[in-house]
Amino acid sequence: MGRPALLLFLLPLLAPLAAPALSPQLRALGRPHLKASTTFRPAVTNAYKIRYFQQKVDHFGFSNAQTFKQRFLIADKHWKENGGSILFYTGNEGDIIWFCNNTGFMWDVAEEMKAMLVFAEHRYYGESLPFGEDSLKDSKHLNFLTSEQALADYAELIIHLKRTIPGAENQPVIAIGGSYGGVLAAWFRMKYPHIVVGALASSAPIWHIEDLTPCGLFMKIVTKDFKISGPKCSESVQRSWGAINRLSNIGSGLPWLTKALHLCTPLTYNDIQHLKNWISETWVNLAMVNYPYASNFLKPLPAWPLKVVCRYLKNPNVSDRALLHNLYQALNVYHNYSGGETCMDISETIANLGTWSWAYQSCTEIILPFCTDGVEDMFEPHTWDWKKYSDECYSQWGVRPRPSWITTMYGGRNISSHTNIVFSNGELDPWSGGGVTKDITDTLVAITIPQGAHHLDLRANTIFDPAPLMLARSLEIRHMKQWIADFYGNSGGQL
Amino acid sequence: MGRPALLLFLLPLLAPLAAPALSPQLRALGRPHLKASTTFRPAVTNAYKIRYFQQKVDHFGFSNAQTFKQRFLIADKHWKENGGSILFYTGNEGDIIWFCNNTGFMWDVAEEMKAMLVFAEHRYYGESLPFGEDSLKDSKHLNFLTSEQALADYAELIIHLKRTIPGAENQPVIAIGGSYGGVLAAWFRMKYPHIVVGALASSAPIWHIEDLTPCGLFMKIVTKDFKISGPKCSESVQRSWGAINRLSNIGSGLPWLTKALHLCTPLTYNDIQHLKNWISETWVNLAMVNYPYASNFLKPLPAWPLKVVCRYLKNPNVSDRALLHNLYQALNVYHNYSGGETCMDISETIANLGTWSWAYQSCTEIILPFCTDGVEDMFEPHTWDWKKYSDECYSQWGVRPRPSWITTMYGGRNISSHTNIVFSNGELDPWSGGGVTKDITDTLVAITIPQGAHHLDLRANTIFDPAPLMLARSLEIRHMKQWIADFYGNSGGQL
Repeated sequence: MGRPALLLFLLPLLAPLAAPALSPQLRALGRPHLKASTTFRPAVTNAYKIRYFQQKVDHFGFSNAQTFKQRFLIADKHWKENGGSILFYTGNEGDIIWFCNNTGFMWDVAEEMKAMLVFAEHRYYGESLPFGEDSLKDSKHLNFLTSEQALADYAELIIHLKRTIPGAENQPVIAIGGSYGGVLAAWFRMKYPHIVVGALASSAPIWHIEDLTPCGLFMKIVTKDFKISGPKCSESVQRSWGAINRLSNIGSGLPWLTKALHLCTPLTYNDIQHLKNWISETWVNLAMVNYPYASNFLKPLPAWPLKVVCRYLKNPNVSDRALLHNLYQALNVYHNYSGGETCMDISETIANLGTWSWAYQSCTEIILPFCTDGVEDMFEPHTWDWKKYSDECYSQWGVRPRPSWITTMYGGRNISSHTNIVFSNGELDPWSGGGVTKDITDTLVAITIPQGAHHLDLRANTIFDPAPLMLARSLEIRHMKQWIADFYGNSGGQL
Repeated sequence: MGRPALLLFLLPLLAPLAAPALSPQLRALGRPHLKASTTFRPAVTNAYKIRYFQQKVDHFGFSNAQTFKQRFLIADKHWKENGGSILFYTGNEGDIIWFCNNTGFMWDVAEEMKAMLVFAEHRYYGESLPFGEDSLKDSKHLNFLTSEQALADYAELIIHLKRTIPGAENQPVIAIGGSYGGVLAAWFRMKYPHIVVGALASSAPIWHIEDLTPCGLFMKIVTKDFKISGPKCSESVQRSWGAINRLSNIGSGLPWLTKALHLCTPLTYNDIQHLKNWISETWVNLAMVNYPYASNFLKPLPAWPLKVVCRYLKNPNVSDRALLHNLYQALNVYHNYSGGETCMDISETIANLGTWSWAYQSCTEIILPFCTDGVEDMFEPHTWDWKKYSDECYSQWGVRPRPSWITTMYGGRNISSHTNIVFSNGELDPWSGGGVTKDITDTLVAITIPQGAHHLDLRANTIFDPAPLMLARSLEIRHMKQWIADFYGNSGGQL
């Protein structure tokens, strides 16, 4: 349990794997310490304008009249007043510029769709802070950080844009998002079908809640990804936990581990659980960004990074020390592929992700149950304990999660009365386990991308794109064009 | 403008007709002073059990962990575990027992639908007060009085009932409501289609907002009702305002008016506007409850009460004093049909309606624009002034209305992507002007009841029911049965 602070969609540190009693200092690791990002997609940079829109802090009450500036990005190079459309990115748990620059798909289809692109930042992330520096201070200030408020922001923003941009008023809007942003895109269509004609929800684990998905499925998929990326790879990882445990219990073990893993600061016994969490997180992140070409989403990485990692994890049956040496090489693929790092910093977090705000969301509305059994997955076994999770949240924030609220609000598995949502999932993506991977109706459709990782389809076109990915994108475009055509009353499906 | 405090759906005192600067004392008229109700339908009384459910005060935030007891009524005499259904009344602006006893339709169809009946009280009305006696104290305490919170209450309550009543879990729920309750029933289906399979929204003016409906239409329909209820009837009303104005400006006019109208307290010059509002309200109420048989909804009344009223208003071309004597006789039909009153109390309000809470709702979310021109309607001309309305609300509550919010939230006229809602309207009902009176799609259908007044279809069957009313109810039942059959996977439409 513990450490909901790091339970990001993009970066799940796997609460069940963390120590039961983490210090506030360790928890605070989740706090975003932004560093200069190198992940911008050069072709796109500066192609958008940065704008701000005054939002109500509380859409659902009237006694609080405060407002704040929501940031959004807008690009209208290919937009046409005549027969055009608006593609609206429902921002998720981080800096919107980062998501904008990692959602090349929207840029790639803009011309074909005569589309204006809008990327809206989620409240409490990036620059869109309802109470400025105080926004993340305590649960009182965080009270307005909910998916309902964020969706209302998006609705108000779209209405504002339609009212103020000549020619935009009578155009169809499509919601697009990935990961938690994909969940929001789907929910947005469900709750505001009068505002968006459809939604593309990429890698959106809308069913990774309550008991709708087995809590162990996520880590089973991570494990499967390792299994298929190299012989004995998952077995090596599986054995590594015991090796770490054994080494940490012998006299010279901790300094040895510090040196073998090239850690920036000397390991203490109390850090061992955190070290194992950090390693688990590395494997999870690699499974998510196991893209078929060199990329730089969470980190600069080679093509098929898991295959590269698994080259170092071929032999589980070596000594503990030999295994740890190999483990270091494997970790190095993720943490130091560019070769610029002199040591491994196990306290680092990913720039551009609002870890602290997400920690609050994962202690209130967005409860994602995780568990491992060490048999069907390659991790140390940990059970999911609702009560313990709730108590941890209460001690950290003074609030308790309402695990069934999201199902009450958004319908859980009972969503068949909605229309015009494409759920896309990569088969390699651990989040696909909680996603919609089968068609529900003719207009609630699932697109599965073989050998696809986390929202691969939303990334920019490359010459390395495998055929199934190109097919998935063309299906997505076909659906979006159909929604636009239906909006314009032209059921022939041609723009 | 002014007096939003009395802008009830069931009892619109017509803000534009009130004095521009009403005293707080007059405003406080809206405060509910409950008196013993005589409106219960004897056949039904005691057929339900009264229950309470612990609701969160704030569904949309986590820092406030307070709860309150929501009252609901439940009747399961005809309910069947096997193939049954749940008919759920989405309570509106008043005591739920009153609505329960005036919604005979649900009782009449219970056996045929094998239905459990549930009547849920709207928060901040009746006994369902989030902060007890302090609930209506100020806008801080009233902050959680919104349609969104009320709908979330209903969602949580239904889930609770399904979890706790053996046999209820896998049954279809249908939302039913009239007037504002009908609006809520429709919105409930739109926002929570996973919880209710359909909605019967009777006399629900979902489009009486912003500029979706001309602000003068409501009073035009009232006027039309008078026109068709007797020759020169509307002309007599039209002339009466000038007569009152002239009499109030002459020396002996005020005592004369006090006596002629049998007022309980002597009229002062400052009361004249209020007197005219009270008379207008009487005409509006009569138009709403102009039922084809003797009834006792707002007041004990004869069959077709407007026809009785219009017997006294046949001749507009008499002296001011003669006109006022006739006016008194006409008013007496509404205010003293049972003959027990010795004088007219122009400060009275209707028992069982939460006038004060409604005043807050009509100053925040539910803004219903009214206007009159004195030409196409029989009232004194008054324009609708958004700014003035907003200023009045601000001075009264310290909050400002957000007139476009309801459209943003619930879609305005753009609701065609929803399904399974029956909108029924009586042609005589002034609220029908803001209602859905034409089919939108195959499953968003309008049922119009010729010669029907305000939610006549939800009243109990009587032997006096006209054929069009019986036809309307049978259509409603057919739709509801279809939803239930669809739920059970039997598209044949038979229960």
